[in-house]
Amino acid sequence: MSAVILDGKALGLRIEAHLAQRVATLKNSGVEPHLAVVLAGDDPASQVYVRNKQRACERCGIKSTRIDLPNDVSQEQLMRVVANLNSDESVHGILVQSPTPNGTDELAITETIDPSKDVDGFHPTNLGRLVMGQTDGLLPCTPAGIIQIIEDANIDLIGKKAVVIGRSRIVGMPLALLLAQKGIDATVTIAHSKTEDIEGICRTADLVVAAIGRAETIQTDWIKPGATVIDVGINRVVDDSRDSGSRLAGDVDPAVSEVAGHMTPVPGGVGPMTISMLMSNTVRAAEILLN
Amino acid sequence: MSAVILDGKALGLRIEAHLAQRVATLKNSGVEPHLAVVLAGDDPASQVYVRNKQRACERCGIKSTRIDLPNDVSQEQLMRVVANLNSDESVHGILVQSPTPNGTDELAITETIDPSKDVDGFHPTNLGRLVMGQTDGLLPCTPAGIIQIIEDANIDLIGKKAVVIGRSRIVGMPLALLLAQKGIDATVTIAHSKTEDIEGICRTADLVVAAIGRAETIQTDWIKPGATVIDVGINRVVDDSRDSGSRLAGDVDPAVSEVAGHMTPVPGGVGPMTISMLMSNTVRAAEILLN
Repeated sequence: MSAVILDGKALGLRIEAHLAQRVATLKNSGVEPHLAVVLAGDDPASQVYVRNKQRACERCGIKSTRIDLPNDVSQEQLMRVVANLNSDESVHGILVQSPTPNGTDELAITETIDPSKDVDGFHPTNLGRLVMGQTDGLLPCTPAGIIQIIEDANIDLIGKKAVVIGRSRIVGMPLALLLAQKGIDATVTIAHSKTEDIEGICRTADLVVAAIGRAETIQTDWIKPGATVIDVGINRVVDDSRDSGSRLAGDVDPAVSEVAGHMTPVPGGVGPMTISMLMSNTVRAAEILLN
Repeated sequence: MSAVILDGKALGLRIEAHLAQRVATLKNSGVEPHLAVVLAGDDPASQVYVRNKQRACERCGIKSTRIDLPNDVSQEQLMRVVANLNSDESVHGILVQSPTPNGTDELAITETIDPSKDVDGFHPTNLGRLVMGQTDGLLPCTPAGIIQIIEDANIDLIGKKAVVIGRSRIVGMPLALLLAQKGIDATVTIAHSKTEDIEGICRTADLVVAAIGRAETIQTDWIKPGATVIDVGINRVVDDSRDSGSRLAGDVDPAVSEVAGHMTPVPGGVGPMTISMLMSNTVRAAEILLN
C-alpha cells in the first residue's frame, strides 16, 4: 500500500485562485486588499519567506507593502511602525516577520497589532476565540492550512482519534483546538516531548500531526495502516549526495508513506498552505471591514 | 481500595486564608481589592451563586459591590454598566453573573469587560494567553481550581495521560491547555459527545476530568485502578428518599471511588474551588495594577 500524497502546493494554488475572485469583488467595491509586511534585520531565511509571501500576494491580486527596518531597530520604533499601520485605513493585514531582532520582544509586538489586522492569527484575542469555538475570524495560518488539507481530502474525523505532537502557540495548541471543535469533532490528544509511550499513542490514531522540529522522527511502525499523517516539520539535514550537501526533511520518515493512507510531503505539503492561509486571512480581514 | 477524597472545600478555605494575608498587604499599600458583581434578572440559582461569591469576598477581606439590574435590561444598558466599571479605578474585578437575560448577548458582554478586570477569565484575550502558554494572568476559575486540587494532592502528571471530557470554553478547552502546559506536562486528550470508545480512552488515563453535565455517567469500569478522577458536574437528580425529592449528583458514579486513587466529591470538590479562584483572580488583578 502507498499513501495518497496530499499536495499542499496544488491545493494552495486552487485556494489562491478562489481568493483572486474575492479580491476582484472587493476591488469592484472600491476596496483593494492590502498586506503590510514588516521585515526587521537581514536574516537570509526571512528574506526568502517575505519574498514568497509577496509573490503569493501578486498571484491573488493583493497589494503588498514591505517595510524594511535595520537590524538595530528598537522595540519602540517597531511598535511605532505597527501602530502607524494599525491606524492606516488602507492596510488590512499586518505581518511582522519572525524572528524579530535580538533585544526586541516579539510577543509584545504581536500584541500591538490590531486583532482585526492580525493576519498571522497570533494575537491572544484571536487565539482565545479558538478556545471559545469561534472559527470564523482570523485563524493561525499553519493550523488553518492543515484543516483545509484534511477537508479537501474528505477525511472524516468525527469521533476519531487525532494526535498532535507539539504544543507551540503557533501550531500544536491552536490546531488541537481546531480539530476538537464542533463540526470536525476529532478526539484530540496533545502530545509533546514529555509524553510517555508516544509511539503507542500514535499507533492508535487515525490522524497524526507531527510538529516536532526533529528530522524524520515518526517511524513506519508508529503509524496505524491507513492513518492520515500530516508533517509540519521543515528541517535541513546533511546529504552528501546533493551538490548543496544538504536537503530538506520533515518530521516524518518518508517510508511512513508505505503504511499511511494519506500523507503530506515535505516540501510541498503544509508549507505552501501556510502562505495561502495568510492570503485568505488578508482577504477575510478586508471583507470583514467592508461588511 | 478506596479513593483519597480531594476536599475542595477545605483547600478553598486554606487558599482564601492565604489570600486574606495578601489582601491585608494590599490594604497596607492603600489598595482595597474590590469585586463588582453584576446580576441581571431574578434567576433564583444566580441569586445563590452571587451570595456565595460575596460571602467568599467577606472571608478574604475583599470589598464586593453588587449591581442589580432588571430582567428586561437592554444589551446597551448592560454594556454601559460594564463600561462604567471598566473606568472605575476603585474596581479591580468585574463579574457579570451568567446567564444574562434572554435577548442579551452574553459573549459580547464578556468581551466588553477590560481583560485586566476579567476575574472570570472568560475574555478571549485571557483565554488566548493559555494557548500561548502564559499562565501568570487571570485564569478561568474552574480549570484553575482543578489544577490547584491536583497540585495540592502532589499528583505528578508529567508525561501521563489525562482525559478531559467536555469541550466548553469555560472548562474543557482551557483545562486541556493548562494540563498540557510546560511544568504540568500531561499528555492531554480532549474527548466529547462525538468521541468513539470513550470508556476505552478513559481506561488508559491516569487522570479523568468529567465536565459532561449528565449525572453519574462515568462508571467504575471506565477507570484504571489508582487513577485520579475530577468531577466537574453538578446535576440535580430525583431522589425520593430525600424530603426535597432530589439531590445533587456529579458526572461520576460515586462507586468510582472504589477504584480511583484520588477523587473529588460532589458537592464539596470543584465547586468551592471555583469560587476561591475567583477570589484569587480578584487579588491578582489588584496586585498587577499596583505593580
